[in-house]
Amino acid sequence: MPLYQAPQRDMKFVMDELLDMPSHYASLPGCEDASVEIVDAIREEAAKFTTNMVAPLNQGADEIGCIWSEEGVKTPPGFKESYQQFSEAGWPGLIQDPEFGGQGLPISVGNMVHEMVLSSSLGWAMFCGANGGTLETLEAWATPEQKNTYMPKMVEGKWGGTMCLTESHAGTDLGLLRTKAEPQDDGSYSLSGTKIFITHGEHDQTENIIHIVIARIAGAPAGTKGISLFIVPKFLSDANGELGERNAVSCGSIEHKMGLHGSPTCVMNFDGAKAFLLGPANKGLQCMFTFMNNARLGVALQGVGHAEVGFQKSLDYAKDRLQMRALTGAKNPELMADPIIVHPDVRRMLLTQKCIAEGGRMFTYDIAKMLDVIQRSEDPEAKAEMDDALGLLTPIAKAFLTEQGHDSANLALQCLGGHGYIKEWGVEQNVRDSRIACIYEGTTGIQALDLIGRKIMGTKGARLTNFTKTINAFCEANQENPVVSEFTSELTKHTKEWGELAMQIGGAAAKNPDEMGAASVDFLMYSGYVVLAYYWARAAVVADKALQAGTTEEDFYKTKISTAKFYFQRLLPKTRGHVATMNTGADNLMEINADHFAF
Amino acid sequence: MPLYQAPQRDMKFVMDELLDMPSHYASLPGCEDASVEIVDAIREEAAKFTTNMVAPLNQGADEIGCIWSEEGVKTPPGFKESYQQFSEAGWPGLIQDPEFGGQGLPISVGNMVHEMVLSSSLGWAMFCGANGGTLETLEAWATPEQKNTYMPKMVEGKWGGTMCLTESHAGTDLGLLRTKAEPQDDGSYSLSGTKIFITHGEHDQTENIIHIVIARIAGAPAGTKGISLFIVPKFLSDANGELGERNAVSCGSIEHKMGLHGSPTCVMNFDGAKAFLLGPANKGLQCMFTFMNNARLGVALQGVGHAEVGFQKSLDYAKDRLQMRALTGAKNPELMADPIIVHPDVRRMLLTQKCIAEGGRMFTYDIAKMLDVIQRSEDPEAKAEMDDALGLLTPIAKAFLTEQGHDSANLALQCLGGHGYIKEWGVEQNVRDSRIACIYEGTTGIQALDLIGRKIMGTKGARLTNFTKTINAFCEANQENPVVSEFTSELTKHTKEWGELAMQIGGAAAKNPDEMGAASVDFLMYSGYVVLAYYWARAAVVADKALQAGTTEEDFYKTKISTAKFYFQRLLPKTRGHVATMNTGADNLMEINADHFAF
Repeated sequence: MPLYQAPQRDMKFVMDELLDMPSHYASLPGCEDASVEIVDAIREEAAKFTTNMVAPLNQGADEIGCIWSEEGVKTPPGFKESYQQFSEAGWPGLIQDPEFGGQGLPISVGNMVHEMVLSSSLGWAMFCGANGGTLETLEAWATPEQKNTYMPKMVEGKWGGTMCLTESHAGTDLGLLRTKAEPQDDGSYSLSGTKIFITHGEHDQTENIIHIVIARIAGAPAGTKGISLFIVPKFLSDANGELGERNAVSCGSIEHKMGLHGSPTCVMNFDGAKAFLLGPANKGLQCMFTFMNNARLGVALQGVGHAEVGFQKSLDYAKDRLQMRALTGAKNPELMADPIIVHPDVRRMLLTQKCIAEGGRMFTYDIAKMLDVIQRSEDPEAKAEMDDALGLLTPIAKAFLTEQGHDSANLALQCLGGHGYIKEWGVEQNVRDSRIACIYEGTTGIQALDLIGRKIMGTKGARLTNFTKTINAFCEANQENPVVSEFTSELTKHTKEWGELAMQIGGAAAKNPDEMGAASVDFLMYSGYVVLAYYWARAAVVADKALQAGTTEEDFYKTKISTAKFYFQRLLPKTRGHVATMNTGADNLMEINADHFAF
Repeated sequence: MPLYQAPQRDMKFVMDELLDMPSHYASLPGCEDASVEIVDAIREEAAKFTTNMVAPLNQGADEIGCIWSEEGVKTPPGFKESYQQFSEAGWPGLIQDPEFGGQGLPISVGNMVHEMVLSSSLGWAMFCGANGGTLETLEAWATPEQKNTYMPKMVEGKWGGTMCLTESHAGTDLGLLRTKAEPQDDGSYSLSGTKIFITHGEHDQTENIIHIVIARIAGAPAGTKGISLFIVPKFLSDANGELGERNAVSCGSIEHKMGLHGSPTCVMNFDGAKAFLLGPANKGLQCMFTFMNNARLGVALQGVGHAEVGFQKSLDYAKDRLQMRALTGAKNPELMADPIIVHPDVRRMLLTQKCIAEGGRMFTYDIAKMLDVIQRSEDPEAKAEMDDALGLLTPIAKAFLTEQGHDSANLALQCLGGHGYIKEWGVEQNVRDSRIACIYEGTTGIQALDLIGRKIMGTKGARLTNFTKTINAFCEANQENPVVSEFTSELTKHTKEWGELAMQIGGAAAKNPDEMGAASVDFLMYSGYVVLAYYWARAAVVADKALQAGTTEEDFYKTKISTAKFYFQRLLPKTRGHVATMNTGADNLMEINADHFAF
């Protein structure tokens, strides 16, 4: 049994059948070449690479982890060599601009590949994620000269990248940062300060590392209005990319974490490091937000990966483990006991994971499709429409899917009982690795405030209304279909309620802003359940059409419809708990004095 | 800031004010000495010992763990020495029979002390738990001679004990066990087999270890009807307790676990070990159940401890960490930012933990009070009544409080954001340590089947009816009190619904047994929310009385009422989600063929 097997059939279902990526790519400037055959071949190759080259490194990466010394950070056994092979095969440039050596494929193809990479080893994948975010920021804000200096080497996989934001006293609240940049006579800056929690801040996987650092230029305004972005290379280089002097940036230590041991989380010391301004001065925070949507999609996708990995392992176990008899009588009387998959509650745990993995796949792949449009489309209206939808959906995807991904990983562990708690099976690693996803790139609480505050109240509900219109149109178009009418009727009820809840919160918050915070996480979770219901209903419609048209894969499509039914009957109703608590007001949270929480 | 501080004020509230232990002890044969002064002194001493001697070992125990070698298992630094001090102070004998050197105090006093021990270090506490379970089994089933041989040394803390049940293919399903016992001419048995997951199966904390092992006597019936209990000492001893020959039992390896590194989880090999029958032959499973209620209470208490520890750490952090401003405007304009406890969602996370820790404390301490009655009372009716209530409440306490304890530990981590994910703060250790509690001594799924199947349907609902009558009587007595009428009216609605749900499930299960499994975990969680609501309502009544009577501790009592309000408004309504999914039937779980879960 492989450690991880890319769920290729489901990926193809989502890409080709549910989201109709072939037509999407055909209509997208520069993506005409992304034919079904090409995308199939990419998926198959990535599946092979991740199953054979990356997944086998994952358990060792957890056990051995990264090792810090004065000389630098040693990544886990095999990471350097496998990343080199990954680079030689051209994977780091998959979605990068051909001008800098990339293959120019759509973001959504990169997203599909990234799901396989992060499912096979999150620690390994974090390096790709860090590089991707750095490249994206450079692409958006670097001068042509800066682009030529840094991007080709990174696209080639020879150099790595990082995003250096957090300081020990400035996490969510970046306006508090203290890292300083002093202008120098040559137009560069001398940058000093200490950053923490820097993913892959130092490592041995590439010969150079390009740090993007946020700092305050001497004399700039306090708070978020005085933040600028800088490029700080580990080694300075000449115009030909030849490495020169070592810059004054070093890794002081690495964190000892609950999980994600394969990725060094670094304290980075900048001691008068040579730094180059990236983008306009004092607009650093705005510049950074350009890559936030992608980064949050990347983390949402981690939730999908964690659910998928846990699902695969716990499903294998549940089919194999013989223990007790079915409640309805022995199913395998010739064996000493029945496999535990006969038990309804084991099935509940498995199907929950399946719904999150497959539902989250539909959701995140659709977000990636929207990002394609924003990146490539020449139709400003289409771009604006996608931008609106994305603004609404990104915090939902990030927070809901990471929470559900972690819960799914925990359900997988539960399916294995005591065996799940020991390291041997790898399911507990998945739980530990998945835990950070609910925190980084903005915690669940921060996403929830972003959703209700900026994205809903900030647009007077327009974005939510637009999205629920899309769902309602889908429901109307399919309500006569007996296979899905149960789903469309539930969905319609929920879209109506969703708007009402937003109105209620907005009304209460106008009088007392704490009401927004008090309702926020329940509202976000509610939203997540409704969005996933929309995708599951769509999956059922597609599956029904395939069955109507005749297919050799009846079992596959029938299971899709049964899984949608499970989702609508067993997961969507969890909204009832959130509705019941959401509007109980802020009083029950705020009336206790901070000094009276404990005696 | 200490690593752990026993919540003494709350413990005293629960013991003296809520449960009126002073009158309870006064009426209990042999417990007349357990005065308020004595119990206060015990609590204070235990608080000192755990805070000063045990809690400081906890992080090292996690990092260094236990080390296996051919010679045996070395426990973490300080464990042996501190257990020796614990023994010298008489703690292992606190609730043991004076006949064997114990102090004969009630179970409920031991329970209070055990909360402090396990909160300060679960790994350390597991050793006490294993010894306690062994002693209890010996007390119930050993011959006078066996008792005299083993119990005094264990009570003194010189010898340890274990319960050896699980085999690699026989976890929940003990009837599958293969360990064999061959009768010998001298009346002893020769026992052979391999047990796994044995807590503290081998260690260096005591000079001898007494294993209680379940095995099948040669020729005994297959399944659960052929299981017997045996005593297998590590070292055989003479009548004076002098150690002799080493028995043929050895530790083959220890597990590498997600957490709980302070407690060795052993593979134990019995190779023709000398074994002594304990209790009647072929009744081993029934004999074992005598200690199951206590063991499950012990694990439920772990949930309380995990919630308490996480609450303490995350509360400290939330009051200290400055980040962002309150939604309603700066609360500390003179500082760079406000402490994060100003945010409603941070308060939601803190108060949830507080409700589980304090609510779980009321619930588990009340169960311990019932165990006192069963152990000591001379009134058979009172004993039978408590036994009934305990049968109903034990699976609820075990499963609900461990699930909530783990969720609380996770909320604590979330309050710390990225800092929670690194080992330094100890909150991630609490998450990892807490995870096993949902599994051992019967998983959440197993407790849920026990509750709905044996405890409710098996008594035709009588036990549930008796308990809801108690709750309803409390509600009637207090419904006119404006401070709690909101609570009693919610509780009354829930007790009615609770019975209806049980009836519905029973009715459906009569036609299809899978309906019971399909509803079981939702039903258990529902039950847990209602039971905790009952205790929170009682706490509010007690607090209100104290306020009415006049007190110097107004803040303490007012906070109790506010926390009850939070519970009723923000946690109890989670029952709505469980009600909505519970009765959607077994079809959505059972209709997918096991081979079609993944393609």
